[in-house]
Amino acid sequence: MTDNHTSPAALIAVDWGTSSLRAWLLDADGQVLDARRSDQGLMQVANSDFAGTYHALVHDWVRAHGRCPAIACGMIGSQGGWHEVPYIETPAAPASLAERLAVIDTEAGAFHIVPGVMQAPAAGRLADVMRGEETQSLGALALDPTLAASARLITPGTHSKWITVEDGRLGTFATYMTGELYALLTAHSILGRPAQACAETPDPAAFDLGVATARDTGETGGMRALFSARSRWLAGELSAADTTAYLSGLLIGEELRSALGHDDHKIPICLIGDADLCARYQRALGHFDRAPARIIEDAARHGLWRIAEQAGLLAKEQL
Amino acid sequence: MTDNHTSPAALIAVDWGTSSLRAWLLDADGQVLDARRSDQGLMQVANSDFAGTYHALVHDWVRAHGRCPAIACGMIGSQGGWHEVPYIETPAAPASLAERLAVIDTEAGAFHIVPGVMQAPAAGRLADVMRGEETQSLGALALDPTLAASARLITPGTHSKWITVEDGRLGTFATYMTGELYALLTAHSILGRPAQACAETPDPAAFDLGVATARDTGETGGMRALFSARSRWLAGELSAADTTAYLSGLLIGEELRSALGHDDHKIPICLIGDADLCARYQRALGHFDRAPARIIEDAARHGLWRIAEQAGLLAKEQL
Repeated sequence: MTDNHTSPAALIAVDWGTSSLRAWLLDADGQVLDARRSDQGLMQVANSDFAGTYHALVHDWVRAHGRCPAIACGMIGSQGGWHEVPYIETPAAPASLAERLAVIDTEAGAFHIVPGVMQAPAAGRLADVMRGEETQSLGALALDPTLAASARLITPGTHSKWITVEDGRLGTFATYMTGELYALLTAHSILGRPAQACAETPDPAAFDLGVATARDTGETGGMRALFSARSRWLAGELSAADTTAYLSGLLIGEELRSALGHDDHKIPICLIGDADLCARYQRALGHFDRAPARIIEDAARHGLWRIAEQAGLLAKEQL
Repeated sequence: MTDNHTSPAALIAVDWGTSSLRAWLLDADGQVLDARRSDQGLMQVANSDFAGTYHALVHDWVRAHGRCPAIACGMIGSQGGWHEVPYIETPAAPASLAERLAVIDTEAGAFHIVPGVMQAPAAGRLADVMRGEETQSLGALALDPTLAASARLITPGTHSKWITVEDGRLGTFATYMTGELYALLTAHSILGRPAQACAETPDPAAFDLGVATARDTGETGGMRALFSARSRWLAGELSAADTTAYLSGLLIGEELRSALGHDDHKIPICLIGDADLCARYQRALGHFDRAPARIIEDAARHGLWRIAEQAGLLAKEQL
């Protein structure tokens, strides 16, 4: 049905998470022909009508370019998503993600979903799961192959993941609920109140003070310092506007304190995600005498492209 | 106006916090003549009408017994309360609380408010504040004078305080937002969802698993384990009903891990507060090979009585 002369589209790549959705129309070289972003994350899709939501999003692409294979990552493959795709276990080789794609037949073309990755519990290691970050990780490795030998990938966000890459595979990983804690504490706890009544811009130094405070808690840990976002305001050490910037620093600082541990500074760190958020993590890393080797913003799209290539999706549909 | 033959009432003691209010009518020996509990905490008092709320609560006591001095502790002395009472600084001697009472003249009698205590920031020590727990601490010392030489008092709750007693004074202290975090995470975060759809009773072993998990995080700290309340459910290690008991154990376990540190087991621990909550902390302490030397439920009333005695409130009004 496709015509490669008038229609160079080869793949629709979709990053479909809990609160938002991004889609890219890619040509046979992986170049972006068009892109869109929607707030139709899993939570916003009425009556679980994922098929309808997807068609509404891409119907003009299909009208212009014909049916096209699609590949998606993220919570869309979870129990509450379109179709639950079983996790694959760590250590996860890139090829194993491509081998375990789930496929849904839609009127716009075959819709593939990348499996999530589970870390099975073992001595000294907690069970953990990710959906989406495994694809971002592969995108990072595709963009910078030097990371494949050994790296720590960080995907800051609602649930930050710290993923160890070893010998080209995704190894142990850990989740920090830093973004969700920040949102909850500023919206619903006593810590958020002073800034709510305040229109001033916080001083970036308050963020730095939060990071340094969490870092300096040492093994007692940052939870002990959480209430200081209030007591430092009461003691006159922070302005009302500064309290949430301080809290942000405290939570990110605790994540770094915990995750970096006695890290020997030899394994390169790669930040993956939104530029503003990565900039905050970069700034926070500076308080631990660390700098990211790389910051990658469009890792999901590159990861989806790489997995589609490995799964032979492009070749198949172009015939 | 009082008549000691028909009216033995000597003091009204009030523990007035953010979400609740307790009041006791006490005789000249500190014995309870009557007690009441109300949900008219600071947040529920409309238009800041604290005087009206107080009179509604005690007007029948005053009608039966005549005007009577009152003494209150808790957030009622904060900026958002009836009257802001300046903090006194650590180390705080019991006498200094009695010397700094604020007084409001009301139609029911003089209403005294105990000041809160502030720990000023210093090297290796964060600013911190308490209002109410200083009075509970004095109550604990009054009930068990052996604690005065050296003890660690814990007041589990929304904001747990760990208060060091040295030479009869309240020394350094720290706040853990354990109860508030538990409430926020179960009500608003992804961690609370599995149990919301579930009427089963959790297995107490899930609480124990949470405590042990936080303890075993060591210096990486319990924040790294928070997401395991979800991933362990996804991995089949926890039932839906067990997830919140596990989370409670995780948060209390992290508080204990952080606060006990390299504690040498020599300083006696005293738990102060609600019996059910103290029982949970007692159980959690067992995972750290610790047991409370004492558990005290009615510390606020005893502390208020002790401060009233020291301030001469009883003698004055009985003349």
